[in-house]
Amino acid sequence: MDFYEVIGLVAAFITTASFLPQVFKTYKTKDTSGLSLTMYTTFFIGIVLWLIYGIHLRSLPMILANSITAISSLFLVVMKLKYK
Amino acid sequence: MDFYEVIGLVAAFITTASFLPQVFKTYKTKDTSGLSLTMYTTFFIGIVLWLIYGIHLRSLPMILANSITAISSLFLVVMKLKYK
Repeated sequence: MDFYEVIGLVAAFITTASFLPQVFKTYKTKDTSGLSLTMYTTFFIGIVLWLIYGIHLRSLPMILANSITAISSLFLVVMKLKYK
Repeated sequence: MDFYEVIGLVAAFITTASFLPQVFKTYKTKDTSGLSLTMYTTFFIGIVLWLIYGIHLRSLPMILANSITAISSLFLVVMKLKYK
């Protein structure tokens, strides 16, 4: 694994991790008042496209980061729909 | 430009655009109470690493998306420090 792959993996870890507090807070409080359904739905679509692009580039960091973030953002969309 | 590069550019546009309403809202209201300094600082670091990784991969979508998002997240960090 070369230097830049490690940079990518660290980036993947940081940006994926920075998204999780919002997921945990929403899971615990069920409070979705501050969440924008449009923003998270478009964000989810964007992340799925990044995932497809990352698979094409065979980039492990992009595949890891975007699959976890896709699941997290989909979770927030589902929570928003459930607890409007 | 091949099909997957277009997928990457659309992903770049969507995820970068989904970040901007937060930037405009913070710029207009100067209200940073809801923003976590730690989250946006770590997020900024992660985005800079993605930018380095994207430059290494010579990926236009990654370079575009991460340079704009780096500037936006740095702006939010500065606003948070200024308007605690």
